[in-house]
Order: sequence, then C-alpha cells, then structure tokens
Amino acid sequence: MVEDDGVVAFPEAEGTRGEIMAATYEALRQHGYAALTVQDIADEFPKSKSLLYHHYDGKDDLLVDFLSYMLEQYEGQAESDRYPDARAELEAVLDRLFAPSFSEPMVERTRLMAELRAQAASDEAYREQVTRTDERFHERFTDIVARGVADGSFRDVDPDAVAAMVLTLVNGAMERRATTDAEFAGQVRAEVDAYLAARLYRDEV
Amino acid sequence: MVEDDGVVAFPEAEGTRGEIMAATYEALRQHGYAALTVQDIADEFPKSKSLLYHHYDGKDDLLVDFLSYMLEQYEGQAESDRYPDARAELEAVLDRLFAPSFSEPMVERTRLMAELRAQAASDEAYREQVTRTDERFHERFTDIVARGVADGSFRDVDPDAVAAMVLTLVNGAMERRATTDAEFAGQVRAEVDAYLAARLYRDEV
Repeated sequence: MVEDDGVVAFPEAEGTRGEIMAATYEALRQHGYAALTVQDIADEFPKSKSLLYHHYDGKDDLLVDFLSYMLEQYEGQAESDRYPDARAELEAVLDRLFAPSFSEPMVERTRLMAELRAQAASDEAYREQVTRTDERFHERFTDIVARGVADGSFRDVDPDAVAAMVLTLVNGAMERRATTDAEFAGQVRAEVDAYLAARLYRDEV
Repeated sequence: MVEDDGVVAFPEAEGTRGEIMAATYEALRQHGYAALTVQDIADEFPKSKSLLYHHYDGKDDLLVDFLSYMLEQYEGQAESDRYPDARAELEAVLDRLFAPSFSEPMVERTRLMAELRAQAASDEAYREQVTRTDERFHERFTDIVARGVADGSFRDVDPDAVAAMVLTLVNGAMERRATTDAEFAGQVRAEVDAYLAARLYRDEV
C-alpha cells in the first residue's frame, strides 16, 4: 500500500504477528473501533482463528498490541531513513506531517489512529502504550535537535524543550486532521518554520 | 463545581437543556463514552425521561448536542471575561491551558472531551460539531491577535496564521494530557512564549 506521496499506510505483513496486525488494520478500516469485534479481525486473518484467540485476551488487548506494532514499524522506518544532517531530517518529518493534504490511505490511517489513541483517555493499557509512543517520538525529536546543537547548525537550546514543542504541534495537527475539516496545515507549517528560524536555526538570525 | 484553580469543570445547570446536559456529563463521568447508554443519562435526569427521548434521537445525537453546549458555555464565559489588552487575554488563555497540572475535575473533563472529539474521526455529525468548535476557537484567537496588531502591541503578522498555530498547540496539549502521562506543559509553554516573543510581541525584539 505505497501511495504517490511515498507514505506507507500499512506495512507489508511479515510473520504471524504481522498477519494478525494486517487483519486488524483491515477490520478497523471496515468496521471502525466501536463496532469492531475479535471475530471481524479473525475474518480477515488467513490462518487458524485459534491462533488469534490464543495470543490475545480480547479486542482491546489486540488493539493495544496493534498500537505497539505501528510504533515498531515507524521506528524501523525512521532508522533506515538517511538524511544529510539534523535540519534536513527535521524538515523531512515536518514536510510529511504538515503536508497540505494527505492521500486517502493516510487520511484513513490518521483517523483510525486518533480513535485508538482516544481510548487512552479511559483505559490504562492504552494509556501506557500511547505514553510509550509519545516518549519515542519525543526521543526522536530530542535526538535530532541535540545533533544539530552538537554540530553547531542549531542554537544552544534545550533539545528536550524544543522536542516537546514540536511533538505537541505534531499531535495537535494530527488530531485536527482526524477530527475536523479545517484546513490549517500550510499556515501552521509556515508558523512552525518561523518558530524554528527564530529559535533553532543558526543561519537565520 | 468551581475548583481552586478557578476552572469550572461543568457549569450550573439552567433550564431543561441545561439539566439534560448536566445529566449527560455525570453519566459520561461514571460510564465513559463506550459503555454509555441513553438510560444512564436518563437515570441522572431529575425530570420526566420522556422529555429526554422526545428531544434526542439516541446517544450520539445527545452527545453531539453536548459538544455544542460545552462550546456555548465556553463562549459565554469568554465574552464575560475582561482583560486590559490583547496580550493579557492571550496570556490568560495560555496560562489556563498550559497550567503545569490540572485539577481533578479538569483532568476528567479533558479526558471526556478527548473521547467525544475522537468520535469525529468516524462520525459525520460529530465531525461537523468538532469542526465548528475548532472554528470558534480559531476565531477567538484570530480576534485577539488582530486587536494586538491594530493597537500596535503586536507585530504586523497574519492573525489567521498565528491563530492556527496557537490552536494547533492547544489541541496538541489537550490531546497529550488526555491520552498520555507525559509531563510537557511547562516546557511547551516556555517554547510557546519564545515563539510569541519572536513572532508577535513588539517590545521583545
């Protein structure tokens, strides 16, 4: 499922867990979170259904693992990407997340992920996983900023604080895309650039 | 339900709609979105249950009106607040939303609202209402920035773009509070201040 914009909506299934996760994605896509049953997922799973029931203790247990899987896939992708420097990496991430419009599969995925994340508001197992996902993104942004500071291309900021700002912006943008028809990505991206120019990039004083 | 921090978790019920909305809030608080039934709301409603079934076409119809009601309450509050100038108003809103910690009722309310907003990812009626809520917040921030530009205390920015940035930050912060245990509010507030100092406030060049 590679789109024109190069964004993979869902990775190729590998191994039993990968196949379960692909079945989960497809079932979520068709039924949405609220109506989803383990049977819907089993219906999309090519192997023995008992395998699925053996591994997971119900729908939410499976969906929390799905969130974990999506994070692992993201991290695998992020590690294999190569960028000339910290600024190019930051800009590439922002280009992707603040793209003026998303492809249909990315729209769908953004909405599904928002629905799953929201379960964390009332369910501790989701909350732990979403907190973990948030931490990993925070670490990635912190690492990017710290590298730019170390090589002198970024100002001497606290990488942790700038990472927290970028992550909050990214989460806000994803949430607004998932739950509203507002068109804001271009405007916000320009303001994010203004923030980074004033705060982070050394050659734009 | 006024807290130490002066934040009202839920307004005093006025009139039949107000009482229905108070019953909805209480039922949501007790049961969460997924398990909630119209009967749960009826159980919290002091008047005739038939009134409730007469006015609303099921749980989601009622909850979409609940979102609309929360917006009206917010707007009524915002209109009655008085600030010396645009900057004081912007800072007051940010102080409230980026407070290092929320009172228990505000934590609860933030989580409930996040769960309801997330329904907009898959339901058109929620999506229309959440989009409307988003627009009103956007208008309020645009109005604040435009006043500051007009009286010369803010730089000559596009109020619409700065409002979009602030709203995305606010939504990201509320979403992260609702779905994670991350502690980021203080850090992000400091970065928001750095953004506003560089981009908006004229006396901080």
